[in-house]
Amino acid sequence: MAATLKDVAALAGVSIKTVSNVVNGYGFVKPENRRRVEEALEATGYRPNVGARNLRRGRTGFIAMVVPELSVPYFGELVSLVISAAADHDWNVLIEQTQGVRDRERDALSALGPHMVDGAILSPEALTAEDLAVLDPGVPFVMLGEHSVHAAADHVAIDNVAAAKTAVAHLAALGRTRIAAIGANPARGTATLRLRGYTEALTEAGLPINETLIAPAAKYHRREGAQAMATFLDLPEPPDAVFCFNDLLAIGALRTAADRGLWVPEDLAVVGFDNIEESAYAIPRLTTVAPDKQAIAETAVNLLHSRVVDRDNREPQTIQAAFRLEVRGSSRPRAATRSPRP
Amino acid sequence: MAATLKDVAALAGVSIKTVSNVVNGYGFVKPENRRRVEEALEATGYRPNVGARNLRRGRTGFIAMVVPELSVPYFGELVSLVISAAADHDWNVLIEQTQGVRDRERDALSALGPHMVDGAILSPEALTAEDLAVLDPGVPFVMLGEHSVHAAADHVAIDNVAAAKTAVAHLAALGRTRIAAIGANPARGTATLRLRGYTEALTEAGLPINETLIAPAAKYHRREGAQAMATFLDLPEPPDAVFCFNDLLAIGALRTAADRGLWVPEDLAVVGFDNIEESAYAIPRLTTVAPDKQAIAETAVNLLHSRVVDRDNREPQTIQAAFRLEVRGSSRPRAATRSPRP
Repeated sequence: MAATLKDVAALAGVSIKTVSNVVNGYGFVKPENRRRVEEALEATGYRPNVGARNLRRGRTGFIAMVVPELSVPYFGELVSLVISAAADHDWNVLIEQTQGVRDRERDALSALGPHMVDGAILSPEALTAEDLAVLDPGVPFVMLGEHSVHAAADHVAIDNVAAAKTAVAHLAALGRTRIAAIGANPARGTATLRLRGYTEALTEAGLPINETLIAPAAKYHRREGAQAMATFLDLPEPPDAVFCFNDLLAIGALRTAADRGLWVPEDLAVVGFDNIEESAYAIPRLTTVAPDKQAIAETAVNLLHSRVVDRDNREPQTIQAAFRLEVRGSSRPRAATRSPRP
Repeated sequence: MAATLKDVAALAGVSIKTVSNVVNGYGFVKPENRRRVEEALEATGYRPNVGARNLRRGRTGFIAMVVPELSVPYFGELVSLVISAAADHDWNVLIEQTQGVRDRERDALSALGPHMVDGAILSPEALTAEDLAVLDPGVPFVMLGEHSVHAAADHVAIDNVAAAKTAVAHLAALGRTRIAAIGANPARGTATLRLRGYTEALTEAGLPINETLIAPAAKYHRREGAQAMATFLDLPEPPDAVFCFNDLLAIGALRTAADRGLWVPEDLAVVGFDNIEESAYAIPRLTTVAPDKQAIAETAVNLLHSRVVDRDNREPQTIQAAFRLEVRGSSRPRAATRSPRP
């Protein structure tokens, strides 16, 4: 038989109101009474009826997180961090996968609503500002990832142009002159920004922009990175470095380089983006742009909480999370002489 | 303004009942009427009120999936497949992460209930049969992963003993005689079974069981695999092969082998378990036990659907999913002469 507030109050020798205050974090409770209530909660194994509590508060107890694919490690890691941050606010997280397809992103947005969730965190790839203007989800939401189109919503993102510039400037500083890019995709907001950072860094380094060294990628998976790298290596003058718009593309590029008998970084330096855990174990270890994922998750959840619970009605905010370039074996300076791998 | 059933019926020139039958998949609808309704649904952009529909059906529209960690790729891939399979039954999926900690697994179980979800898919690591006997979640549930303790619930799993035996027999057939294992953990059901498969295969191959070649792993992460491999390589007689109880451990082992200047598979053959996508891109590509994840996800969701919707009250079932050994570069036969990597 489940313990009730009354059972807890009887055991602690306090009023039901006092137990309720402790459980819900309301009001002032004398330290001695708090201690007795906490002991009684422990002894009885009391569990609050979360459903009923949310109903009283006019909340569902859920937030939605809309991402392209959980099987992409960046999103797996991000969702994991969001679930932890949401739990601190008593929120459960509903996951919706869109495969980054515009129609499915629109569907996910229009399926939201106050009957289902208190708010949402969206990580769209193809959604446009026009979509967002038409499809009001009816609940507060936070957008993750920088977008070339501006929407009237809170945003949390790193500065993608600056991050890409940092990565490519690093390759140029190593003396690489044929620096390729993998991941161009006009339909993806972040791809456009990373491409801009790439071209700006080349120009600042006095290097030409060579269209044959810019590979598109429909998806940001390992396979696409491997294929793009194979195409580059078939060129009469292949690249001596490659900046990939995410780590999975870079891991695909590393795989192709190994298949072709190239040495990384001696023959080809490789830089990725996301700092997924896999990149630190790649052979060689992958240099990558490391966004502060923990900060992105916590900031997004806290912003949502302030909109939903504190009914914060300020203008939409754009919060920039930090990034750093994590330099590892895949882009160490060119060795004077070759040494056997690894 | 959202379209209603009435709008759709007016446009199609049929009764509201006919539209409802098409939308809900009930009853017989003449092909011609079905075509007209489908066109009208498309033209009006009608969306069913899923919340109201679930209420009528006495369902919440949600199932829970309880997993250790989404940031572990095996679970990211599995959850992604479950979300797709659940969508075919109009189910949304609530994700709960437990970190594989027994208390958190018990909490997740006791927080379930018919007010929140229609059913649950559990992938526990530390939960015992006693826990399950006490903590009735009050909704149908399916357990993933084989467990040494039997619980009165539906199970979907591969034969872990046979799978581990297949992996180790493969290493023995390559002529390896000092075959190590990474991942022993008495608190994890699958670890116990995989360890049994390992020892059985050694015995059948006429090889001794050497306790110094069995490494425990508290977590099945890359870091633990790398550390266990380092310990093995410090032995006076290090192993010439290693069977890791998941791919992440194996990827950590590959990393340490590279750091110590070993060649894989020449000096050390490595086999993992799970066939996460990363394993096909590892350098060298990782040989691994490949469970049929798609079948596991679909079988679990379909079992749950039959319990919840068809109110199937048969005895708990145990369904065995298929596996195969995916042989790749990390365990190819020993080369007669060394060739430069990769």
